[in-house]
Amino acid sequence: MKYHTQMEAARKGIITPEMKKVAAKESIDEETLRRKVAEGQVVIPANRNHQRLDPEGIGEGLRTKINVNLGVSHDCPDFEAEFEKVRKALDLKVEAIMDLSSCGKTREFRKRLLETSPAMIGTVPVYDAVGYFDRELTELTAADFLKILEIHAEDGVDFVTIHAGINRETVAHLKLNSRVTNIVSRGGSLLFAWMEATGNENPFFEHFDRVLEICREHDVTISLGDACRPGSIADATDSVQVQELIILGELTKRAWEQDVQVMIEGPGHMALNEIAANMTLQKKLCHGAPFYVLGPLVTDVAPGYDHITSAIGGAVAAMSGADFLCYVTPAEHLRLPTLDDMVEGIIATKIAAHAADIAKGLPGAKEWDLEMSKARAALDWEKMFQLALDPEKARRFREESLPEIRDTCTMCGKMCAVRNTNLTLRGEKVGV
Amino acid sequence: MKYHTQMEAARKGIITPEMKKVAAKESIDEETLRRKVAEGQVVIPANRNHQRLDPEGIGEGLRTKINVNLGVSHDCPDFEAEFEKVRKALDLKVEAIMDLSSCGKTREFRKRLLETSPAMIGTVPVYDAVGYFDRELTELTAADFLKILEIHAEDGVDFVTIHAGINRETVAHLKLNSRVTNIVSRGGSLLFAWMEATGNENPFFEHFDRVLEICREHDVTISLGDACRPGSIADATDSVQVQELIILGELTKRAWEQDVQVMIEGPGHMALNEIAANMTLQKKLCHGAPFYVLGPLVTDVAPGYDHITSAIGGAVAAMSGADFLCYVTPAEHLRLPTLDDMVEGIIATKIAAHAADIAKGLPGAKEWDLEMSKARAALDWEKMFQLALDPEKARRFREESLPEIRDTCTMCGKMCAVRNTNLTLRGEKVGV
Repeated sequence: MKYHTQMEAARKGIITPEMKKVAAKESIDEETLRRKVAEGQVVIPANRNHQRLDPEGIGEGLRTKINVNLGVSHDCPDFEAEFEKVRKALDLKVEAIMDLSSCGKTREFRKRLLETSPAMIGTVPVYDAVGYFDRELTELTAADFLKILEIHAEDGVDFVTIHAGINRETVAHLKLNSRVTNIVSRGGSLLFAWMEATGNENPFFEHFDRVLEICREHDVTISLGDACRPGSIADATDSVQVQELIILGELTKRAWEQDVQVMIEGPGHMALNEIAANMTLQKKLCHGAPFYVLGPLVTDVAPGYDHITSAIGGAVAAMSGADFLCYVTPAEHLRLPTLDDMVEGIIATKIAAHAADIAKGLPGAKEWDLEMSKARAALDWEKMFQLALDPEKARRFREESLPEIRDTCTMCGKMCAVRNTNLTLRGEKVGV
Repeated sequence: MKYHTQMEAARKGIITPEMKKVAAKESIDEETLRRKVAEGQVVIPANRNHQRLDPEGIGEGLRTKINVNLGVSHDCPDFEAEFEKVRKALDLKVEAIMDLSSCGKTREFRKRLLETSPAMIGTVPVYDAVGYFDRELTELTAADFLKILEIHAEDGVDFVTIHAGINRETVAHLKLNSRVTNIVSRGGSLLFAWMEATGNENPFFEHFDRVLEICREHDVTISLGDACRPGSIADATDSVQVQELIILGELTKRAWEQDVQVMIEGPGHMALNEIAANMTLQKKLCHGAPFYVLGPLVTDVAPGYDHITSAIGGAVAAMSGADFLCYVTPAEHLRLPTLDDMVEGIIATKIAAHAADIAKGLPGAKEWDLEMSKARAALDWEKMFQLALDPEKARRFREESLPEIRDTCTMCGKMCAVRNTNLTLRGEKVGV
């Protein structure tokens, strides 16, 4: 074996099969991609044991990617319901699925998912620890947390969220600085509870070298979790969030020393005017590592519509430097998402990602819109449906209400601006 | 009568009852508001004949307002269906309704709407002309177009869209510069067809002084329509759009000479990275007049989801200077919206407006979010529902799937970060 990780290969001047595939998908030069992987600006999460993987790159100069969360849990243990979501998410061509399973036969679920999915698979090992060892949280040891990470790595997980930034120093800042919503990260809150109950340092921080060994061996990309991401507009860009980001930047350098690929997780809830500054701050403090954001949600007051609050924030974030968007569904803050919620969340997130890719001038992005607009100008409805992000919904909406003049729609009918302008420019009479 | 229009009053140093109400709603000083109305930075659309009106201001330093479109048309002549929309829109506290009725008993509809609505009412008189005179478009005269405007003004309409910017000069630029989607403005396309068929100048441009007389008499605010707004990402910020904006800026100054209040209509479809520049351009070319945008839609490829594409663009536009957002529904580009589509469109647009108001630091904006986040931190579900933009949907979503531990939700159940962090900070045991 000439290399352990994509980063090691890149640094040795090797263009891997994964790099070739990613370069072709992104229409960029293989050597440029190799250099970005070597420098950590791009990650290609690709566990050696994930045989079905069709690799994707995440980072500077590449298309914005999106992630879907699912998995079995105490309140939703149904394998088949979750696998129906998996199939739908894959149909909709999401680039990543995070398996957040936290209860029941989590390993069986994970293995079946890895066998099924060409999309990269991420996990948060700490969610799985309590169930796997069947012990109270506070009875788990640092070795247990590392063991569960090792199991996920061996199973073939492509990236893992590791909340190593909430160490004793960050906790001290958290206690000094009053927040409205203290910790809203599930994994972060579990580690915080464990640290406070045991008096120990965060195991992933204390044993970060062992984390790196495990991830290096299987080429697991570390997604450094932001345990202190703001859970409200009021908490955004505060000292606790920034303190943790400083730690994450330091851990990034340590990972890179071991050729381990890293991305950084980000907010959260955040006012629209703070997003661009946060993207700049992350890219500086974390040395250009790819940024993976959850939202940001640009207001706290819209439960039931957080796919929209996060599409607004995600579009601006991705335009300003974020590389990877975690989807948010209309069910956020209220309950587990249904299949329909998932679809709404995926489409909203794809809109945000694509809008940002147009804004960034990525090759192929605005060309899609141009094709759609040409079809629209020609009133070619079949072509419009084919080009739509969600062809089925577009077709259904139109067919629910058909106009008298069939090349128009019921919004304007015979007053259709497109039809009438076409007629006028051809010198034909407009009858309205 | 001491004054004809709010602007004339403001210039004479008079603080009108409408200004007092608006200043109180916005928590700003009456004298500051008066100065802004005098200078044209703020409009208070308030026709003397709209008795039910509860006035609102639109412009610099005020909350972002939103508009809903509805009305009877050839494909949807049902009065009651449209009045159900009116009632719902008023329940949801939209600040403006545009009656785009184009067929049938349009005057009866308009009068009933004005009697019903405390929200300001806008119209596009040109839509109504063909039906009112019962003649072919090309057989209408300039006098007919002015007559229909006069009727709307007398009926009590607070603001009217007048597409006076698509004059012969703009048409010449349109023909010189190839566009993907030439004219997507319904009113603009009708005037273009009329101009091409008759060989005449745009009647609203040619007789702009008469337009001003009518609007001055009843204090109708002119919303200068952008006939050449981009209908595709490809056409945005092109010479045709900017040419028309130059004309609109010149017409703004002429209106202000007659104390007539003016706002400017804007895009349209536009890449995310062009929006801020367009807001700056509009405010400069149109001398600080309030900006009323339709979208902008940040991608063309999402029919069925254009409430989301436009919420993204609208939020960024409003943060960057736009003052008034026209709602867009999921039915845009496909058919007339249903009642449900209208609600989705209103909420999406309210999210965009509120996100921008937070970003602009408007008084009272972020305080709402703070209350919500405090309720969230306290796991006070009843308070969260009360504070939600759509309380009914938030409540329904949660109740569809209740968790075993009642103060959490099924997203995380007993792994709820908020619950566990609260317990940890209180020194209590977390059982997961």
